[in-house]
Amino acid sequence: MTEVSILSTCSKKPSRIVTNYELEEKLSLRSGIIERLTGIQKRHYLGKGESLQGLATDVCAEAIKKSGLDPSSLDMMIFYTDVPPTLPENDCLKKTYYEISPHIQYLLRERKIDLNCECINIGGSCTAYISALQLAYGLIKSRTKKNILIIGAANCSSFLEKADKNVAMTFADGAAATILTATQEKGFIDFYCMTDGAGYNSGSFKEYDELFIDRKRVAEFAPRAFQLAINSLLEKTKIKTENIDLFIPHQAGIRIIKRGIELSRIPPQKVYICLQYDGNTGAPAIQIALSNAIEEGRINEGNLIALIGFGTGWNYGATAFYYHKNPVS
Amino acid sequence: MTEVSILSTCSKKPSRIVTNYELEEKLSLRSGIIERLTGIQKRHYLGKGESLQGLATDVCAEAIKKSGLDPSSLDMMIFYTDVPPTLPENDCLKKTYYEISPHIQYLLRERKIDLNCECINIGGSCTAYISALQLAYGLIKSRTKKNILIIGAANCSSFLEKADKNVAMTFADGAAATILTATQEKGFIDFYCMTDGAGYNSGSFKEYDELFIDRKRVAEFAPRAFQLAINSLLEKTKIKTENIDLFIPHQAGIRIIKRGIELSRIPPQKVYICLQYDGNTGAPAIQIALSNAIEEGRINEGNLIALIGFGTGWNYGATAFYYHKNPVS
Repeated sequence: MTEVSILSTCSKKPSRIVTNYELEEKLSLRSGIIERLTGIQKRHYLGKGESLQGLATDVCAEAIKKSGLDPSSLDMMIFYTDVPPTLPENDCLKKTYYEISPHIQYLLRERKIDLNCECINIGGSCTAYISALQLAYGLIKSRTKKNILIIGAANCSSFLEKADKNVAMTFADGAAATILTATQEKGFIDFYCMTDGAGYNSGSFKEYDELFIDRKRVAEFAPRAFQLAINSLLEKTKIKTENIDLFIPHQAGIRIIKRGIELSRIPPQKVYICLQYDGNTGAPAIQIALSNAIEEGRINEGNLIALIGFGTGWNYGATAFYYHKNPVS
Repeated sequence: MTEVSILSTCSKKPSRIVTNYELEEKLSLRSGIIERLTGIQKRHYLGKGESLQGLATDVCAEAIKKSGLDPSSLDMMIFYTDVPPTLPENDCLKKTYYEISPHIQYLLRERKIDLNCECINIGGSCTAYISALQLAYGLIKSRTKKNILIIGAANCSSFLEKADKNVAMTFADGAAATILTATQEKGFIDFYCMTDGAGYNSGSFKEYDELFIDRKRVAEFAPRAFQLAINSLLEKTKIKTENIDLFIPHQAGIRIIKRGIELSRIPPQKVYICLQYDGNTGAPAIQIALSNAIEEGRINEGNLIALIGFGTGWNYGATAFYYHKNPVS
């Protein structure tokens, strides 16, 4: 039986560090309020000359290098984002909507990294990484594909000009890449993903310069979705909370995460949080957190990891997998 | 071994019929030129009060009804489009980018069709239906999901105001839905999907009121991609051209299709074409054509069908499947 494991991960923050001090000045907020409300101490925005595609290309190149795979042995690229996919031109955002994954393939080729594969694009909110993992899982498990590259990236900072202050203090930019591969030992166990369309209008991008979040509804929904996602997965897989080594939730905001932990009765010391340094990067936040946790040595050989996603849509979901440092293909 | 078959299909044209006469007047073109260049005799645009989401909801409702499934037994909705997903408000297109699939789920619920499932969104060009079928195939074949609803829809007419005349005479609106299910008998055989990022900038939506197509490059690329897609699939599956009962290519334009047929050495009488009545509906065109072909009785029990996609990105791909009127689950 073909199993599916993570072969490599990588994340990258863009260069421009934005402190709470800078944001509190800009948004006319009193000192200390951002950390108190969100748990965020700093975040990163795309700097001069940086773009969503460039950041995505960087993480791909690094994940491919780490994997040891020849780029030509990748069978598919799944790119996902929650921001409107637009083409950056002349250093400013031009409102040209198009597919991003072929562009990333093109940019990799310019760096002599030749991906001879199918590239697809997913538009989704903060559960999109789990959905993308599930799609890749199906294709590998059914032997339709063998090696799949998943990229999540978001340039939320480009859409904060007219945003509500609470949104502006929360969102940030970032990207991550993961390579999944067919293995002999068990990696991914199962997935639980769900949508409740009642939240279809809870988040959007208005006129391309305002990330709109219906905060009141999101604050109500998110902790409940956190609980529903992880509890439904545990029930479906018969895995017990105590068997999971690390829970990685969407890095929405410290209050939502704390309430979600409470509701789902998860030991807080087993929950990985990196929003204090990264902010809420939207769709790729879970993928970035997973990469950080591996990088920081919080995940060890054979550990059982759970990812928990929830976001506008409403979408929510969870997955559990065994982590192998060098999975046997 | 779990196999994957089509359980039901449905397509719908919006209400407003646009004749060549009307378009030739509007675009100051001489009479007869549109049919000569594109093969299109008429096309449909969204009419007053109609929307992409409404059309998509209609085809879902009909495909579910035809399938005989209880809506609650659907495990997933995959929505794909090539147009920027925006929210229609006050009868005009508002530039609010968001996820469409949760909205369709919401609209179905308003009609008492309750889909308790994951909903995802794919942004892709004219191979997106084949990519979506492949994703669903992987999930069903690996027993991750059992019944998957795939919806393709595009409202190209909303983006033709400033478009090049050749683009304006070609594109149209439409939607289709397909339900895939786990079966005992063989349905889908295999897929071949490929991207060449050199075409990343060959198509886009500029400032949200202009569908831009780099016609010269597309005209060169499309027939070659048609050939590459079908020939690569035939080579991969060892299926011979003569064993295929019907080829359904993307309905790009009559010249591209004729040249693609020539290059791939396919008997023209085995190629299904409906662009004369539907125009080029972009991403959902293959799915609409498949539904039409079944509706018109061009596809019979046990027939071997090939779908051929090619489009901006560059993306191209093909799949082959046996059609069963009443697949045994």
